Amino acid sequence: MQAKTITVKLGKHCYDIIIGPNLITQAALHIKHSLQHNDFHQMRLAIVTDTNVASIHLNTLQAELIKNKINIVPIIVEAGEQSKSFSTLQIVINEILAARLERGDCVIAFGGGVIGDLAGFAASIIRRGMNFIQIPTTLLAQIDSSVGGKTGINSQYGKNLIGAFYQPQCVISDTCILDTLPLREFRAGYAEIVKYGLINQPNFFEWLEKNGREIFSNGPIRTKAIVRSCQFKTAIVAQDEHETGERALLNLGHTFGHMLETATTYDSKRLIHGEAVAIGMVLAHQFSAQLNLINSTLIYRIEAHLKAVGLPTQLKDIPGNLPDAEALMALLTQDKKVSQNNLTFILTRGLGQSFIAKNVPPDAVLSFLKQKLTEIR
Amino acid sequence: MQAKTITVKLGKHCYDIIIGPNLITQAALHIKHSLQHNDFHQMRLAIVTDTNVASIHLNTLQAELIKNKINIVPIIVEAGEQSKSFSTLQIVINEILAARLERGDCVIAFGGGVIGDLAGFAASIIRRGMNFIQIPTTLLAQIDSSVGGKTGINSQYGKNLIGAFYQPQCVISDTCILDTLPLREFRAGYAEIVKYGLINQPNFFEWLEKNGREIFSNGPIRTKAIVRSCQFKTAIVAQDEHETGERALLNLGHTFGHMLETATTYDSKRLIHGEAVAIGMVLAHQFSAQLNLINSTLIYRIEAHLKAVGLPTQLKDIPGNLPDAEALMALLTQDKKVSQNNLTFILTRGLGQSFIAKNVPPDAVLSFLKQKLTEIR
Repeated sequence: MQAKTITVKLGKHCYDIIIGPNLITQAALHIKHSLQHNDFHQMRLAIVTDTNVASIHLNTLQAELIKNKINIVPIIVEAGEQSKSFSTLQIVINEILAARLERGDCVIAFGGGVIGDLAGFAASIIRRGMNFIQIPTTLLAQIDSSVGGKTGINSQYGKNLIGAFYQPQCVISDTCILDTLPLREFRAGYAEIVKYGLINQPNFFEWLEKNGREIFSNGPIRTKAIVRSCQFKTAIVAQDEHETGERALLNLGHTFGHMLETATTYDSKRLIHGEAVAIGMVLAHQFSAQLNLINSTLIYRIEAHLKAVGLPTQLKDIPGNLPDAEALMALLTQDKKVSQNNLTFILTRGLGQSFIAKNVPPDAVLSFLKQKLTEIR
Repeated sequence: MQAKTITVKLGKHCYDIIIGPNLITQAALHIKHSLQHNDFHQMRLAIVTDTNVASIHLNTLQAELIKNKINIVPIIVEAGEQSKSFSTLQIVINEILAARLERGDCVIAFGGGVIGDLAGFAASIIRRGMNFIQIPTTLLAQIDSSVGGKTGINSQYGKNLIGAFYQPQCVISDTCILDTLPLREFRAGYAEIVKYGLINQPNFFEWLEKNGREIFSNGPIRTKAIVRSCQFKTAIVAQDEHETGERALLNLGHTFGHMLETATTYDSKRLIHGEAVAIGMVLAHQFSAQLNLINSTLIYRIEAHLKAVGLPTQLKDIPGNLPDAEALMALLTQDKKVSQNNLTFILTRGLGQSFIAKNVPPDAVLSFLKQKLTEIR
């Protein structure tokens, strides 16, 4: 099967997302093409990756690059959300500066969303901006976090509160690499594919209901789902790169989702990002129903599809206790999507009819959260 | 005397630099005008300043803002270059997040270049970009560092190696505030005014030879020099915001200057930035003469003017010992303006005829440095 290329145009930036099987073993070609560097033998690539990805895939990527006489500086951080921290950022930056990489050299993010966010943010602020390439290794990163240029780290005050908008020179998504992804991680990525259907692509959601399980095994359906997802996301991002308007639609399920991730202290044993989004999307639909925007039938349909692939859909699916409704509200209002204490949610008027709801009354949210918590106690 | 306004247009960004006497006491007006916020009573301003500025001027600015019912969060850091650090950046960011400032709120840099670089960088990465206003309180900041959008911090590997290009919503330059600036700081700022003449404004350099001493006392000549300097800089920056080409001209005196600052470990007792630039500009002209680009007469003329206002011009003006030539070369090649080991310098072909010289032979630099060091031993 041939690789597919999506060209992303964002203002002055223009870059390719290349999607297909076995791209790791052709990485040098795509890197050289996208960087158009004068002299690749003088160039240095910092490969930022995590302990998990390094143990399975780093040798393959290194061998491909060394074969093509590209100098590499591997930087391996601990796997997990805790690496999106100020201290790990500082370590990565220092290793890149210690290796004397220059503006025209390149940082490669070789990993999932955490690595993409961390390495991309580092690339954006070293020498006020170095070259940057993403080689995402999780489904979530391939269909979501590697697309659109958001990078950043977490703060004690909330997720992704420190970061930059920074576009890569290219994204290389090897669909075969997903075969080594734990099933739970694969499902979590799948939740964000479903999200695109629920935002504004009802036909795509129906296609997922029929073909979704096929995506879990490698083949043309998986590639198609990744290509379509990247197209949906780039279409939204191209309209609103810096999230002043429509891009907020991509936060469907994320306001509640981030609240739950914070409430479970980013403990991946309890909840990972895509799972939080799955529950968050159901909550957004339930909240829309409570505001009489949709009929409950739609909620059941969405829950049914998420459950069919093994995703959690309810608060009771989260192991352990949750804070009370007031504490959850406090977490919501620290989310960066909150503007001047006026709560903004992505709600929906039907399948694939999501919209940005500003000035949602805090009382309505609080009573909704109370009701949801009552159901699990 | 009326304030002057320069409108800076950089791509999608457009903002005003307002220059004139007693602007601090009209700050609320200019802030409101530039931010065009819906509701100023709901808005919060983080004022990032240093211990020196806070002790003299913070009360005045606070009184003006409080009188206009603007909520403020003062954040005071230690005065000095050491505050351009990862640890101080983290403190500033945490204080801003702890006060729950949002994207539409604003960070004000109230201080010199260190504060502008630190607060601007913080504003650029908090929530992927907050509003940002500069109120520069040093001559150097008013005529150079507040203009052009460079922000950042230092690393153990060199100066300004971590940062972002980030434009403010406006710059408010109160010319009266400079009367409280120590003379040594004023002179250091003056060196960067001279730099604009030496880059490409020979008439301005001649005007400075006649009027330079007037700038040291408050009045229309001072305002004119600041306005002209900002105009020269914005003209260059507008052509090349992200320093891929002509903007590098602004580094006249800076490659040697940064080398000297690093060699003296940013010890302000020995050398401050503008002093390093003054010596660096003389070195750039001497090196140009060594390469047979200019006649020595021009060097003496420039040295004479810098000396006339009390600036250092030679390596022997730096108290204490300097490293040997090989060690100085090592510092030069870590400078971020170095591209792929090909040394780039700003050299000159005459008064106000500077140009970007790429691929300068390292041997020529080394022998020049050896010769300069011999002269002081």
